[in-house]
Amino acid sequence: MSQQKTVSCCSDSGSDLLGHLSPEAYNAPSSAIVGIKTYAQGKGDVIPLWIGEGAMPTPDFICKAAKDALDAGETFYTYQNGVPELRTAIAAYHQRLYGRPFDPNRFSITGSGMQAIQMAVRMVISAGEEVIIPSPAWTNIRSAVVVAGGTPVDLDLHFRPEGWKLDIDELFDACSDKTRALFINSPNNPTGWVATLDELKAILDFARKRDIWIIADEIYTRFYFGGDRENAPSFYEIAEDDDKILYVNSMSKNWAMTGWRVGWIGAPLALEPTIGNLIQCSTSGVAPFMQRAATVALDHGELFIADQIERARSGRNKLLSAFEGQNAVRFAPPMGSFYFFFGLEGEGDASIIAKRLVDEANVGLAPGFAFGQSGSAFMRLCFATNQDRLDQAIYRLNRWLAQ
Amino acid sequence: MSQQKTVSCCSDSGSDLLGHLSPEAYNAPSSAIVGIKTYAQGKGDVIPLWIGEGAMPTPDFICKAAKDALDAGETFYTYQNGVPELRTAIAAYHQRLYGRPFDPNRFSITGSGMQAIQMAVRMVISAGEEVIIPSPAWTNIRSAVVVAGGTPVDLDLHFRPEGWKLDIDELFDACSDKTRALFINSPNNPTGWVATLDELKAILDFARKRDIWIIADEIYTRFYFGGDRENAPSFYEIAEDDDKILYVNSMSKNWAMTGWRVGWIGAPLALEPTIGNLIQCSTSGVAPFMQRAATVALDHGELFIADQIERARSGRNKLLSAFEGQNAVRFAPPMGSFYFFFGLEGEGDASIIAKRLVDEANVGLAPGFAFGQSGSAFMRLCFATNQDRLDQAIYRLNRWLAQ
Repeated sequence: MSQQKTVSCCSDSGSDLLGHLSPEAYNAPSSAIVGIKTYAQGKGDVIPLWIGEGAMPTPDFICKAAKDALDAGETFYTYQNGVPELRTAIAAYHQRLYGRPFDPNRFSITGSGMQAIQMAVRMVISAGEEVIIPSPAWTNIRSAVVVAGGTPVDLDLHFRPEGWKLDIDELFDACSDKTRALFINSPNNPTGWVATLDELKAILDFARKRDIWIIADEIYTRFYFGGDRENAPSFYEIAEDDDKILYVNSMSKNWAMTGWRVGWIGAPLALEPTIGNLIQCSTSGVAPFMQRAATVALDHGELFIADQIERARSGRNKLLSAFEGQNAVRFAPPMGSFYFFFGLEGEGDASIIAKRLVDEANVGLAPGFAFGQSGSAFMRLCFATNQDRLDQAIYRLNRWLAQ
Repeated sequence: MSQQKTVSCCSDSGSDLLGHLSPEAYNAPSSAIVGIKTYAQGKGDVIPLWIGEGAMPTPDFICKAAKDALDAGETFYTYQNGVPELRTAIAAYHQRLYGRPFDPNRFSITGSGMQAIQMAVRMVISAGEEVIIPSPAWTNIRSAVVVAGGTPVDLDLHFRPEGWKLDIDELFDACSDKTRALFINSPNNPTGWVATLDELKAILDFARKRDIWIIADEIYTRFYFGGDRENAPSFYEIAEDDDKILYVNSMSKNWAMTGWRVGWIGAPLALEPTIGNLIQCSTSGVAPFMQRAATVALDHGELFIADQIERARSGRNKLLSAFEGQNAVRFAPPMGSFYFFFGLEGEGDASIIAKRLVDEANVGLAPGFAFGQSGSAFMRLCFATNQDRLDQAIYRLNRWLAQ
């Protein structure tokens, strides 16, 4: 213990301190989803549908594996690229989805899907280079590009009542000589847009010709409502193992493990050591007891995922029947992911509406500008939640709309 | 499930792929500690003293808090800067150490001390800027600078048998107009060097005058063997709350939670939102059940820390008595941290010795070049381990030296 010390207040010098930060850190956009949650704090009974997570905690059989590993003393440093059993479980999961074997060493475990995105971005861009992001898109993707010193370039998806649309020629035209990667998030958060296999092929052809990377965010691939196939189309169906594609993924959505912060990155084998280095100097790996839980989730979670998908499908149906034919509400039926992205006729700035809905309808939605300029007339509602909560939210929204 | 697909092997194109990575990612140094562990894999009974962790798993009372939180369903997304209870516990911990109150919002929870370092570096440098690192020093610090696009500049500590020494004028002379931060790790990993309070004052004065940042890594502050005070001298004793100092810290060492990957960053209040943004777009927070465990550790862990310190002190004494007077062994008694950093007389490249010790003595040490060029004649032995393991390692080393 050392001597007492009187300290001065820091408030006067805050702006001075901020002026001394690197632009990469200072310019990182803040999350508008966190913003609306903060706005709603202490406002009582708000139904929280702003976040991409359900109402159910992680299933017991997954938690049990973590608890057992804690009891077994698995609390030490572990493999930087992930424990072999989990990498094998992820390879087996992909084999089940895509009907061919995968080398477990293609997959490295990250401290969340977000960290996988951050690493993928870091691997492919240097200061001043660009990543094209079909938008609306999760703001954190842009932030990751800014923090790496690069420039995120939004390419607007087009809203049509029959479905959001990517104009593939616009995507290609958006590429400059500074473009190093296309960030393809399909199924898309927040619009529910899903690329067709033909669109993925065209994108891959273009990326090969231009020698640029694809960052493939297919986190919602299991949540597909097209009806013509089980899961959403994937680059895994058309790409070679050595294509310049970095796949980012997460335990969060399929297995209701949002809080855990465990994800993975899928990459050509040659990149395994580089990814290991990047993991080493960011979080140096993921807790072994968490990796045990993730392994059990992957190996024994298919029935749970089926329930999750069914719950999302049912939530989607509820929303479509509630709002189809409502002239005041603008939306396209989501083809994938688990979000209902909607606006109000004649309202260009949904961030005001989102705040009013907190105050007047007690429903918490994410304002669309959280996903880029092209989303600013919309709000995002997560329908992967329990049915009572969703019924209640629909009731409140309809009552508010009627006023 | 989709169609079968034959895939080509990626091995031919590995170099092509690596050539398409950003230099920030491609040039991230690999960990030589991971390297020697890999070298030793499958070689049987090697006593592993290369890593900075003990032989004891995390204490039960800490694990229990995580298990209870899992049972309580604390598996959802949580506050990006950390749960309030943990931030309060960290503030209280600092108050116990430094005898004055701290605002809990100064402290944000990170996914390891390493991630705190990565964020601190990201906050203060842009592409092309420099961080001065007194060395030998943990390689991951350099890697974090490289990954942020900056240049790590080693400033050699000087080996003297009576103790490693920082020449403070050399430190100041090493600063160029590109220098944005000094990375001060005291007590130092791996040398055991500890800055005096006067040295910290001189460094702080210089940083204030030059308007550059200090990143203060005082992770080992509780492990101090100087005898003149309880803990190592700290910037917290002399700095104002709004000084440009970023403190990085970790649950790993004090509380035997190496595998958990939970740490924190201490910063002026004005930086809290920026740190929140950086957390949001890297790992988006730390699992709530892990934060519950960390809270319990901080609030109820002092007796355990006292044991840890005593174990380290006893290990240090064993090593000093074993090797003092041994002419073949070069070392300075560590004043802090829990590493014995030693070389062999006449051997300039200890990485060869470290491999021989794995093969011939069955003792696993970290080669000193893992900590920079100035460490290359030395090896690092972690003595925060159980006494039997350490006795056995000393026995094996002495037997090998006698040959």
